[in-house]
Amino acid sequence: MFHVAIFNLLKYCSETMTENGIYGGIEGGGTHSTAMLFSGTGEILAEVKGPSTNHYQIGKGETARRIASMFEDALKKAGLDTNTTLAGVGLSLSGIEDPETGAEMISTLRGLYPNLTKECKACSDTQGTLATATQSGGIVVIAGTGSNAHLLNKDGTEHNCGGWGHMMGDEGGAYWIAAQAVKLWFDSLDGLNNQYQNISNLENIIKQHFNVKDRHGMLPHLYDNFSKSQFASLTKALADNAEKGDEICLEIFGRAGCVLAKHLIALAPKVNRSMFEDEGGLKVVCVGSVWKSWKFLQPQFLKTLDACKVITELTLVELCVGSATGASYLGGQAAGHYIPRDYSKNVKAFYHYKKQL
Amino acid sequence: MFHVAIFNLLKYCSETMTENGIYGGIEGGGTHSTAMLFSGTGEILAEVKGPSTNHYQIGKGETARRIASMFEDALKKAGLDTNTTLAGVGLSLSGIEDPETGAEMISTLRGLYPNLTKECKACSDTQGTLATATQSGGIVVIAGTGSNAHLLNKDGTEHNCGGWGHMMGDEGGAYWIAAQAVKLWFDSLDGLNNQYQNISNLENIIKQHFNVKDRHGMLPHLYDNFSKSQFASLTKALADNAEKGDEICLEIFGRAGCVLAKHLIALAPKVNRSMFEDEGGLKVVCVGSVWKSWKFLQPQFLKTLDACKVITELTLVELCVGSATGASYLGGQAAGHYIPRDYSKNVKAFYHYKKQL
Repeated sequence: MFHVAIFNLLKYCSETMTENGIYGGIEGGGTHSTAMLFSGTGEILAEVKGPSTNHYQIGKGETARRIASMFEDALKKAGLDTNTTLAGVGLSLSGIEDPETGAEMISTLRGLYPNLTKECKACSDTQGTLATATQSGGIVVIAGTGSNAHLLNKDGTEHNCGGWGHMMGDEGGAYWIAAQAVKLWFDSLDGLNNQYQNISNLENIIKQHFNVKDRHGMLPHLYDNFSKSQFASLTKALADNAEKGDEICLEIFGRAGCVLAKHLIALAPKVNRSMFEDEGGLKVVCVGSVWKSWKFLQPQFLKTLDACKVITELTLVELCVGSATGASYLGGQAAGHYIPRDYSKNVKAFYHYKKQL
Repeated sequence: MFHVAIFNLLKYCSETMTENGIYGGIEGGGTHSTAMLFSGTGEILAEVKGPSTNHYQIGKGETARRIASMFEDALKKAGLDTNTTLAGVGLSLSGIEDPETGAEMISTLRGLYPNLTKECKACSDTQGTLATATQSGGIVVIAGTGSNAHLLNKDGTEHNCGGWGHMMGDEGGAYWIAAQAVKLWFDSLDGLNNQYQNISNLENIIKQHFNVKDRHGMLPHLYDNFSKSQFASLTKALADNAEKGDEICLEIFGRAGCVLAKHLIALAPKVNRSMFEDEGGLKVVCVGSVWKSWKFLQPQFLKTLDACKVITELTLVELCVGSATGASYLGGQAAGHYIPRDYSKNVKAFYHYKKQL
């Protein structure tokens, strides 16, 4: 009797949970990705981590395979049947920078996994992040492995800045920071950069990280065995050394602070003016591991902002919820369903900037 | 009778030609390579072109295969038996930056083609080029697809600057110039660079070259379909537009002039002082297609040099003979044979710089 009651209860919960459908979202980066599942009433059912889902790195087929695998893991974690067809899915992936590419990604996913979801929206990682934080617009500045800035205006218009990958930008991202460090080492030994007398600490950090004995040892890492993630993970060691006061590491994070602020300055003329006049000024959502080093970014970030007349006030916020939350909201939207949410609980302010007039 | 006489004459010539052995050299770049064959008396027997022989791009096995194939073509062109074992071979290849890598390359070549040559020396492309131009030392500055500078002192000591590949340097090379142009286009549209009001000409050059309709179209060229050569060949179009007076193209070549001069400045403190006091000052051998745009490089190149006190006088020279000449000399040297030469016929001066004191 008892077992039957428990069974019926679970069945009831499961049916309630799924009666508005299950919605999924993926926030995909160049190093790792997150998948989340929401009930139609806004309850988080599961959150799982996965590898890179940037189709420029791994191809669209493999990206689709990873997406499906992450949703399968998430369904399992939520105690749901792994064959469940989701009501709506939002794919907020780095590498999806225009609607055409988004449509191709959806088409690949549908071709390989026709029963994964009823509705699907694909967009850039910045859009999913913004959807996590706000419905009234703002700028998201991603500084993870790569970097990117995206403005969503109150009037619905959108503008992007950066995010073109490690070959053509991504300034201020972890790969870029690591590459700056390696370049400074190379240039110092070549005599192309004479700024620092003593680069031995920097040199040791890099040699240890890549397990090389000199610069020649780096060449395979720059060609055949190139791994963007391996470069990006050097940035953690650089941050640890900035924490210990290493002058060169601090200087490199200063450069990152400067270029990240430049993304805001580039977008500033396109921001609806009234957004600067909202309480706390323009909302800037800061996402990605580089922001953990805010205190090292801060001096040059603020100095750079000071030079821009348009930016009068802004608040830097970080996400308090899983980064695939917004992607899941967009998945709901694609299916014509509004997933209930409280934005004030989704973010936390960590810096308020107001220009002294 | 007549036929027999001709046959005997050819046989005699061939025997004379080969009595001191046949020497070969390869000058290998990231886009294309040159192979040459010399007789022991210094006569050029053949010169052939081939593809990239940078082992970081294609692997050592494929590099060896291309080297063997080029020598086979050259022997054929010289009217010699393609099974001839060469007396000595010099491999002056971009991507061979240390003796260990050189030894590995030789070992791969010997493993696959044991009868190709008796003796072999492998070194960087800069060393072969310098050997073409001088025995008394100087600096070679390569600005082909990549860039590199190498100093050979009178006292035999050597120093290098740059040449770390497109990910970590190669400033002033054709890839770098093209990447600067593409980056300027990207940054201008993003608002990260507001230096130029009108970038439409630059934009059209790039779109046409890569056959893309916008920046999104460039993404595959930056990931999956990345081709360093394709970027590098954009530089020709940029030079054509600099010729027409395009302000942005001129500015980009100006940047290249500046960074190329910086390679000289970086090496200057390591140059044996007396080399600046030789007739014409320090000999600087300029190699690679970027130097064809010397008139666009010149203003910033000279301005940058003016800021360096150590550099008092130098002469820029270009090669008048096949770029694999020096590699062939080194092949002779490896076999203990001095190939006769006249350095004054191997180079031509194109600019003399003397600091006004």
